[in-house]
Amino acid sequence: MHDFTFYNPTKILFGRNTHKHIGAQLQAYGIKKVLFLYGSGSIKHSGLYDAVVASLEESGIDCVPFGGVVSNPVLSHTQQAIELAKKEGVEAVLSVGGGSVLDEAKAVAAGALVEHDVWDFYLTTPITQALPIFSILTLAASGSEMNGNSVLTNDSTQQKFSFNALDAYPKVSILNPELTFSVDAAYTAYGAVDAISHVIEGYFTQSGGAALQDRLAETIILSVMESANTLMEAPQDYNARAQMMWAATMALNGLPKNGLKDINFPNHMIEHALSALFNIPHGAGLAIVIPAWMQWYHTQKPERFRRFAKEIFDLETPMEGIVALKTWFAALGAPTTLSQVGIAPKDLDALTSNAAQIAQMWGLSNEYGPKEIRTILELAL
Amino acid sequence: MHDFTFYNPTKILFGRNTHKHIGAQLQAYGIKKVLFLYGSGSIKHSGLYDAVVASLEESGIDCVPFGGVVSNPVLSHTQQAIELAKKEGVEAVLSVGGGSVLDEAKAVAAGALVEHDVWDFYLTTPITQALPIFSILTLAASGSEMNGNSVLTNDSTQQKFSFNALDAYPKVSILNPELTFSVDAAYTAYGAVDAISHVIEGYFTQSGGAALQDRLAETIILSVMESANTLMEAPQDYNARAQMMWAATMALNGLPKNGLKDINFPNHMIEHALSALFNIPHGAGLAIVIPAWMQWYHTQKPERFRRFAKEIFDLETPMEGIVALKTWFAALGAPTTLSQVGIAPKDLDALTSNAAQIAQMWGLSNEYGPKEIRTILELAL
Repeated sequence: MHDFTFYNPTKILFGRNTHKHIGAQLQAYGIKKVLFLYGSGSIKHSGLYDAVVASLEESGIDCVPFGGVVSNPVLSHTQQAIELAKKEGVEAVLSVGGGSVLDEAKAVAAGALVEHDVWDFYLTTPITQALPIFSILTLAASGSEMNGNSVLTNDSTQQKFSFNALDAYPKVSILNPELTFSVDAAYTAYGAVDAISHVIEGYFTQSGGAALQDRLAETIILSVMESANTLMEAPQDYNARAQMMWAATMALNGLPKNGLKDINFPNHMIEHALSALFNIPHGAGLAIVIPAWMQWYHTQKPERFRRFAKEIFDLETPMEGIVALKTWFAALGAPTTLSQVGIAPKDLDALTSNAAQIAQMWGLSNEYGPKEIRTILELAL
Repeated sequence: MHDFTFYNPTKILFGRNTHKHIGAQLQAYGIKKVLFLYGSGSIKHSGLYDAVVASLEESGIDCVPFGGVVSNPVLSHTQQAIELAKKEGVEAVLSVGGGSVLDEAKAVAAGALVEHDVWDFYLTTPITQALPIFSILTLAASGSEMNGNSVLTNDSTQQKFSFNALDAYPKVSILNPELTFSVDAAYTAYGAVDAISHVIEGYFTQSGGAALQDRLAETIILSVMESANTLMEAPQDYNARAQMMWAATMALNGLPKNGLKDINFPNHMIEHALSALFNIPHGAGLAIVIPAWMQWYHTQKPERFRRFAKEIFDLETPMEGIVALKTWFAALGAPTTLSQVGIAPKDLDALTSNAAQIAQMWGLSNEYGPKEIRTILELAL
């Protein structure tokens, strides 16, 4: 086991009706005025918007609503939100939505306290303070509700970059599985792929670790798969929604990577290029990239892939495990090839160069040069 | 899955040489004077004592050392430590040792800020503040390094009681597996039993839950067993010490019980009576109680016990699983009957009445009256 530091101070409120406590949670932090960030109008139709406003009012908290966060959230909208947050002098940011709203909320929380452009945080400027962040989650997928990660797309440069900061951990995240009952089959599938991807990256790329970490990763993968299978038939199964939600949170709250060495995120690197240039859902992009990457990578870690095949699918060889995963992604209705989402061989140059830029930022360009990235993309065609 | 709140703000520094950072960690909290609590003199022989003092000095922190914490820590010594903490005006408490030192440190941290007797906290008085607590762990067992639990024995009344408080979570816990290299085979075994007991209680007594929680519990049990088996042969195997240490921490940091309903700790209830009256090591007491309790309890949850037998031992029936666990405890050198530690049938009256008192405090007396407790104890003879 490799040395690690683990510190995750996000408080989780999990269960039915927990979103009604949001006002009291903000009040406990002495918040008097909050930016209420959300995405499309879906939370208005579902009644969640009104429930949040009512809870804030009950606790005497002024609310500045700002909607319109898009899937794969963009810099331009974030800048508008920051301007509003500054003008209104809000003391906190409340994200109501999935990972996209959370990622933008983190950017707003950090950006509201500085004069420079928030994009600097996605390049090299470290974050040293942020407004307190609170969240009500409506999608089980990104894990953003219990970590300090934020991914944002610069819509003028088509760069999808990320930051990680302790100040960007939500103070409180509210996870009510019932709020995910209305997530459609496609996004339920993408969420499952996303959650699985978060443990798969470390599981395969690590050079340290111990059986404890392997079992923990397998626990999360098996639990997500089991939940997703149930939800394809019964989208309102509470226990399956709950297990999916908590497994997705655990997948990226830092625990699975404790003790692992040299882990990196090559699938996310390539997927970020995909969704930056073609704006496809993150989970859909991952379902395309992961099987191709595995096919390219498995000979470097045959024992890891053999273990994966055995523990997850009760199969024997690395390739059997890879094929089984790809087949499972497809059975959920996720795309597993670039051509399925309309990406053609002529697009590979642009994708390669975009991903190569991320590889450089993440210190991965030795292992993932343009040649390697292109090979993986070709396997995904 | 049942509703839950999860909040664990303890920061973990894990790995080789991490204890040398203790001064810097205290300094980051602005601490200028600390009570340095420890047990027997073993940390002096090992060099750990000097290393801690040197690190504190380097960070300009005044250190008030106070040793003599015993295994199954007692109220009288705790009261002395509180008196010293008050007299010296320390701003924090540093525990260097295993779970016993940590448990006493939590009592001191809370007791130093009040005028009433610290024992009140183990009866009904809630804790509302405490000095910040820091720890350097030397034994993988109790999980006290990442929770707010404290167990103390009142040496004048022979009551072993506990409290749980958010203010009693350590701010920082330092886990260096090398510091456990010198733990002898017996205490390594007791630590393994203790860690396993912490997940077993919830695993079997729950009425809610989901497969995710089952898998997480099994992950911890299997990892502890694997590590313990290695350590019986190779006590200085770093990876086994590390896996044991982190698995023991995870076992009682709140994660395994998230989502479980109606869990309780009957084995701890009976064991606390055992160690209160006979002062045997906690892990040894658990190794005696658990198989007897399982034998008494398994007919209430046959499916849980069947799953345990299958997942942990690849066996089929509940009783096969119970016998396999008892056999494994014995193979580690832990006692598995009361007679092995010199407790005779004539002692059962006193044990029963002590445990029944704890059952009452823990709200378990409906399920565990004197008759049931006595039956379990008889199975343990």
